[in-house]
Amino acid sequence: MSLIKQSLKRVLKGTAVAAALMMAATSVSAAEKVYRLKLAETWGPNFPIFGDATKNMAKMAEEMSNGRLQIRIDSANKHKAPLGVFDMVKSGQYDLGHSASYYWKGKVPNTLYFTSMPFGMLPTEQYAWFYYGGGMELMEKVYAPHNLLSFPGGNTDTQMGGWFQKEINSVEDLQGLKMRIPGFAGEILAELGAKPTNIAPGELYTSLERRTIDALEWVGPSLDLRMGFHKIAPYYYTGWHEPGTELQFLINKRVWERLPDDLKAILQVAMKTAAYDMYTQSKHESGKNWASIQSEYPNVQVKDFPEEVMTALREANDRLLKAHAEKDAMAKEIQQSQADYINQVRPWSNISHRAYLNSQAQ
Amino acid sequence: MSLIKQSLKRVLKGTAVAAALMMAATSVSAAEKVYRLKLAETWGPNFPIFGDATKNMAKMAEEMSNGRLQIRIDSANKHKAPLGVFDMVKSGQYDLGHSASYYWKGKVPNTLYFTSMPFGMLPTEQYAWFYYGGGMELMEKVYAPHNLLSFPGGNTDTQMGGWFQKEINSVEDLQGLKMRIPGFAGEILAELGAKPTNIAPGELYTSLERRTIDALEWVGPSLDLRMGFHKIAPYYYTGWHEPGTELQFLINKRVWERLPDDLKAILQVAMKTAAYDMYTQSKHESGKNWASIQSEYPNVQVKDFPEEVMTALREANDRLLKAHAEKDAMAKEIQQSQADYINQVRPWSNISHRAYLNSQAQ
Repeated sequence: MSLIKQSLKRVLKGTAVAAALMMAATSVSAAEKVYRLKLAETWGPNFPIFGDATKNMAKMAEEMSNGRLQIRIDSANKHKAPLGVFDMVKSGQYDLGHSASYYWKGKVPNTLYFTSMPFGMLPTEQYAWFYYGGGMELMEKVYAPHNLLSFPGGNTDTQMGGWFQKEINSVEDLQGLKMRIPGFAGEILAELGAKPTNIAPGELYTSLERRTIDALEWVGPSLDLRMGFHKIAPYYYTGWHEPGTELQFLINKRVWERLPDDLKAILQVAMKTAAYDMYTQSKHESGKNWASIQSEYPNVQVKDFPEEVMTALREANDRLLKAHAEKDAMAKEIQQSQADYINQVRPWSNISHRAYLNSQAQ
Repeated sequence: MSLIKQSLKRVLKGTAVAAALMMAATSVSAAEKVYRLKLAETWGPNFPIFGDATKNMAKMAEEMSNGRLQIRIDSANKHKAPLGVFDMVKSGQYDLGHSASYYWKGKVPNTLYFTSMPFGMLPTEQYAWFYYGGGMELMEKVYAPHNLLSFPGGNTDTQMGGWFQKEINSVEDLQGLKMRIPGFAGEILAELGAKPTNIAPGELYTSLERRTIDALEWVGPSLDLRMGFHKIAPYYYTGWHEPGTELQFLINKRVWERLPDDLKAILQVAMKTAAYDMYTQSKHESGKNWASIQSEYPNVQVKDFPEEVMTALREANDRLLKAHAEKDAMAKEIQQSQADYINQVRPWSNISHRAYLNSQAQ
C-alpha cells in the first residue's frame, strides 16, 4: 500500500479528504505488514519428521496469513548451536525455536517435565494433560521467567527401550552395562549400576557394532531404521522411559506480544496442528519402518524387560523424582499434577485401547 | 475500503493516478471481503464435545482470518433435519456440515468406511491412514460425485461395547438379545441372532431400566455418564465395533472453490485442528467421567466379550464386508486399503502402546 500512500501524498496534499485517506491507507498498511520471524531448530537440515514439523508449521502460517507471516528456518548446520536454542530464543537472537524441553534441565530443572517422563503418559494422554489437565499452565509458569512461551511441538510416539546385544533377564544384567541413554533415563539406569554414556549420533552404529557400548536407545522404528541398528543388534526392547516424547516450539515473548491478534492466532494454531500432525506422521513412519525391519530382518526379537527389572527401574525413578520434589516446590506441583492425571486417565486407556489391542492380538 | 474507493472516484476522476489507485483499492476490498458461511450440525444445541468441535473450528477460523471468515452454526433444533446434513450441504442450503460419514450409507454405501469400522483402526492409526495412507484420497473419490468435500471432524476415542443387563458368556447369549445398536454393527449382531433396534436417545434410559431392551451402546464414558446408564446396568463391555469413531466436516464444493486461497487454508487447518482437539478432549472427558463412575458406582463391572463371541462377530463382519466388496469395486478398494494399513500399523501399535499399557498395568 505504500504506492497508494505516495500517490495520495502527491495528488491530494493539503485537502481534508487526503487526511482521511492517509489514515485509512495507513491502517491498511499495518494490516498488510509482513512479519519475518527466524526459527532455530535443534535438528540438522532435512532431518526427517522433526524437520517436517517445522516446515509444515511455517507453510501453514504463510498460507493462512497470505504471506504476512514468513518464518525462516535455520537448521543446526546454520546456527551451529543445536542445544543453544533456549538461549538464542531467550536473548532474541532467534524469534522462535524447535527443540525438546528436557534439553534445558541442566539450566532450568523443571523444563524436564514437558517432554516425556519415565512411566508417564502416552501421547494423547499427555495432550489431554497439556490442554485440559493444567499442563499448559504449568509449562507457562516454568518458562515465563525466561521471557519465553513454550508450546507442544510434535510427538515421536512411544519410544522403544533400545537395541541390545545381550538379553536383559535380571537387574544384575544391568550392572556395568554400557548404554547410550542420555538425560534423566540415564540417571535412572545409573542408579541400578549401568554405565550410561552419551555418544555423537554419527558414531553410534560403529560403537554398537564394535561393542564399545552394549546397548543404545534412539527413538523408535520411525527414526531407528535409517540408523541401521537392526542389522547389528538382535534385541529390540519395548519402552518405559519415554512413552510419549513431545517436542517443543519456543517463542520469545516480546516477539509474540508485537504480533497482531490474527497472526498470533495463526501462529498458535499452526504450531498446534504441526505438533498433532507430527504425531500422526510418527505413527505412520514407525508402522511402515517396523514392517520393513520385520520382513528384511526376521531375526530381530522384540523383548519386554522382565517384571523384576521394570520394578527396579520404577523404584529408582520414584527415588529420583522424590529428591527433585523435596528441593523444589514447583517440581513437586508438576509431579503431583502428572501423577494425578495418569491416575485419572489410565483406567480409561486400559478399558479402551489396552482392551482393544489385547482382544485383536488374540 | 468502500469509503476510500468512493472518495477516490470523487476526487481523482479521469486521472491516470486515479485508475491505478482504483485498482489497488479494489484488490484491498477483495482481500477484506467478509465470507459468511452457514454450518448445519447433526447435534442438538450445546451438545457436549461434538458441539464444542464446531464452535472451536468457527472460533479459530474467525480469529485467524481477522473476522473475514464468519461461520454461523445451526444445531438440529434450528434446521430440524439432523440426518439431512448431507443433502442440505449438497444442495447448497448450507455451506458446511458437521456429522458422521456412516450416517449416509443408505444413500451412498461407501460413505460407511470413513467413520470407524468394526475391528478397525484406533484413532491415531486412522488419522495416519487418512493423512499418510491414502484415506483422504479415497474419501474424496466417494464424495466428489456429490459436489462435496469431506474432512475428519473429531474423534470420540474408542467406543465401548455397551451397557448390558446380563453377562454375555457365549454366542447363544446373543440369541434374541434386544439391543439398541444402529448401523453396520447392528447388522453384524443380527447375523448372530440378536435383535438390534434403534430408539430415540431420550427414551433409552427408560427402555433399559424397564427391560424393553437388554442392552445398548452409546459412545464411551465421555458421553455415557450424562445418560445415566451406569445406574441401571451392571455390565460395561469393552469395544469392538467402533475403535476410533471419527466425525466429519462436509463442505459444498462450489462454496469451497469461491473462497480465496488464504481462507481455504484457514478453513482447512481450523477443521483439522478442531478434529484433533476433539480427540484430545474425548480422551480427557472419558478419563474424568470413568473415574467418576468408578468411584460413585463401584459395582459397575467392565467385561470383555469372550473369545468365542469375538470370533463370531469378526466372522459375521468379514461376511458382510465381502458381500459389499463383491457388489462394488470401490468398496473393495477401500476395504483393501484399510486392511493393508492395519496390517502395517498394528504390529507397531502392539510393540509400543500395547506393550507399554500391559507393562504398566502389572
